Amino acid sequence: MDDGIDMSEGLRPFFEPKSVVIIGASRTPGKAGYEIIKNILANEYEGKIYLVNPKAKEILGFKSYSSVKDISDVIDLAVFIIPADATVQALKECAEKGIKAVVIASGGYAEVGEDGASLQDEILKIARESGVRIIGPNTSGITSTPNKLTTTFFPLGKIRRGPIAYVAQTGNFATHTMKWILTGENFGVSRVVGLGNKCDVDDAEVLEFLGEDPETKAVMFYIEGFKDARRLLEVAKKVSKSKPIIALKGGRTTAGIQAAFSHTASLASNDALVDALFRQAGIIRVQNYSDLINVAKALAFQPIPRGKSLALLAPSGAMGVIAADTCESLGLKVAELSENTLSRIREISAPWITIRNPVDIWAAVTTQEVETAYRVGMEAVLDDEHIDAIVVILLMTREIGPKHLNFIPEVSQRYKAKPVLVTITGDKELYEEAKSFLETRAIPVYYRLEDAFEALAIMYRCGQNLW
Amino acid sequence: MDDGIDMSEGLRPFFEPKSVVIIGASRTPGKAGYEIIKNILANEYEGKIYLVNPKAKEILGFKSYSSVKDISDVIDLAVFIIPADATVQALKECAEKGIKAVVIASGGYAEVGEDGASLQDEILKIARESGVRIIGPNTSGITSTPNKLTTTFFPLGKIRRGPIAYVAQTGNFATHTMKWILTGENFGVSRVVGLGNKCDVDDAEVLEFLGEDPETKAVMFYIEGFKDARRLLEVAKKVSKSKPIIALKGGRTTAGIQAAFSHTASLASNDALVDALFRQAGIIRVQNYSDLINVAKALAFQPIPRGKSLALLAPSGAMGVIAADTCESLGLKVAELSENTLSRIREISAPWITIRNPVDIWAAVTTQEVETAYRVGMEAVLDDEHIDAIVVILLMTREIGPKHLNFIPEVSQRYKAKPVLVTITGDKELYEEAKSFLETRAIPVYYRLEDAFEALAIMYRCGQNLW
Repeated sequence: MDDGIDMSEGLRPFFEPKSVVIIGASRTPGKAGYEIIKNILANEYEGKIYLVNPKAKEILGFKSYSSVKDISDVIDLAVFIIPADATVQALKECAEKGIKAVVIASGGYAEVGEDGASLQDEILKIARESGVRIIGPNTSGITSTPNKLTTTFFPLGKIRRGPIAYVAQTGNFATHTMKWILTGENFGVSRVVGLGNKCDVDDAEVLEFLGEDPETKAVMFYIEGFKDARRLLEVAKKVSKSKPIIALKGGRTTAGIQAAFSHTASLASNDALVDALFRQAGIIRVQNYSDLINVAKALAFQPIPRGKSLALLAPSGAMGVIAADTCESLGLKVAELSENTLSRIREISAPWITIRNPVDIWAAVTTQEVETAYRVGMEAVLDDEHIDAIVVILLMTREIGPKHLNFIPEVSQRYKAKPVLVTITGDKELYEEAKSFLETRAIPVYYRLEDAFEALAIMYRCGQNLW
Repeated sequence: MDDGIDMSEGLRPFFEPKSVVIIGASRTPGKAGYEIIKNILANEYEGKIYLVNPKAKEILGFKSYSSVKDISDVIDLAVFIIPADATVQALKECAEKGIKAVVIASGGYAEVGEDGASLQDEILKIARESGVRIIGPNTSGITSTPNKLTTTFFPLGKIRRGPIAYVAQTGNFATHTMKWILTGENFGVSRVVGLGNKCDVDDAEVLEFLGEDPETKAVMFYIEGFKDARRLLEVAKKVSKSKPIIALKGGRTTAGIQAAFSHTASLASNDALVDALFRQAGIIRVQNYSDLINVAKALAFQPIPRGKSLALLAPSGAMGVIAADTCESLGLKVAELSENTLSRIREISAPWITIRNPVDIWAAVTTQEVETAYRVGMEAVLDDEHIDAIVVILLMTREIGPKHLNFIPEVSQRYKAKPVLVTITGDKELYEEAKSFLETRAIPVYYRLEDAFEALAIMYRCGQNLW
């Protein structure tokens, strides 16, 4: 950083390596040095893969080398899955070999005490002298879907490509939370970075890379402690003008602070100062772990609303009341609909009901097909200039639910500037079917009614930075 | 009410009728008068079923009568699925026949304007003079699982029996929300009451019945407006000393109040007064619709915690930090574990990690089977006298998750006084399997990490009324 390296170019070998070497490859299924190879293969990495393990001749069909020095090809990225005490030697060899980027997955450094800390200082010194850049140590590393690469050893399989980046001071988002996203959600990621001990590359530098990354539309952060808060502030200030940055700060309660200290040796931050820092930086702070998934999904699929005026389509009066309360208690607005909008909905509705926002769409279902009622309702409110976004509450049962949901992505496509979010009541099995159908067509679906509104409220805050 | 009827006895024919007549039975699938019969059959009602429809001779194998007067047997409960203007005549006939309880499902009364309101007054007058009690009009009516009966016309199928009662000023909880509970959850209900326009039977009277109902362990309310707030206060004060009463008040924001007025003609309540009323009455107020399901599940399966000191078992350091923050920001406490507890967990853990609460259980997984790690961890913290409840965060993948979850209900059974709640990260498909396995063994599982803590925080507030 201090010697004027182009940071952003400096991270390119991590995300776009043409060749990668796993130092500490293993023949044993379940071991990190084996699972990482499985993950790389599952993601169909198109660059060259080299393995180093002096005790093996071949692993998973690849030749295994005794040392990185024995490999004649140029190598862009090395991943270390070796004991801490073997790192210095390996790092020196990588430097000699001209490798510019190293992910140190293994632990046993600053997080375990003084000996580890001085070892970490030593490897940092080697890196600085040789120009090698390090992510980690103690990290799940990097995922870069445009390059079909992951350095994660947690069994993930194929990682879905998409516009969301995760940067976390924990392996969670490259490991079990990523598995949750891959199996329970339908949006994809561009880059995932587990920063680990941040001995070299830190949040700010990664954010700078992501700010200019055409593959990344929004950045989700999990942070326990700040390495260089001032620099993060500077970079975020710039990036947040063009891309949403959402952050969950771990360690905001007494118990959380203590846990964060045990976890990443992060020192307590004054929570009001964190608020102030994030606000200045244009980082949208969230308080729930789930938000990091729910908001990512909305940002992956839908535009950011231009304002906070919502229309709600509900399948019953009570759901309308509940949704209206949820909406307004989160700072969003249940907007008044124009006379034209109201009359378009009245035309298809039973006469005994007062049409207003939230729209009780069941008043139309008594005279129309469920599908028609929802479709006409959606079009009417999306045409309304007072409306910035809509939440549709679908009622689904085998007997009465909208069986053909195609109209939802179809309508949404025609109103590109206004986000459409869906939540569902009724039959849980149909929820799963509908979620899969709609989300693979870019309509985010929420299990919990409140989550749709929370995602929209956070998206609205993102928009405040953009225009 | 005013003439000294034993209220509580007065509702018995609604919940425990030995015979029921559907006035307005229909031959047409999809129509309310047909679906109600399907629901009654699906629930295997053991009493006698009579149908009235002058245009039909037989429906679904049952004889159809022209009038209730033609039925010679004694009838306990009548359900009206007939147009509003046919109610007066039908009600008079029911009174003559000696029927004591009538559910008026049909709409077209006070909720549609002045004419409807005077019709509603007229039927109330008939009821008062004849001693017939009415639930409704404009309601999905009654479900009473111990008696295998429902008067709901929304296609529900078999309704699972359990200890939770729902009382709602909306059909939601007897219709699509009940479908959601039946298909997405695993707990059961005792009684479900959709109060509709509350022309006669109201919240207070139902609550009095439920207070003495041995089938009901907790009461979940959805209220938009109060009929007789003073009486509700009196009854709730008594009932809340022995059973949790949880309530969501619809209409707490400007938009919600307007929507509630359109929905049930409920007038705005000063929200601070609602708070005060609930507090005095021992009613636990919740703010989210989802809470009415999440808390019900916890109360159905687990004991109420004696205090707010929690132990958390997490599969990673970051999940521990996140869980600790969630726990404490909801007013619960991440308790200090006793030395004995810590050393029991240390014994099975890798030496490099500091054991504390939240317990990073993955430190034990490096030396133990996942199952053993979690089991020993659970036992250690449940034995700790400082701990009132635990939240277990399971990490599940095909490769590394606890494959045999039987130990969780087994351990929970041995510590009956301390609630155990579970949330899951990792593979979503395994989440579904685990949820089904655990919940059918009385361990509540939450999709969203935050929901487990929110449910516990609300349970803790329930406990404050009980001891």
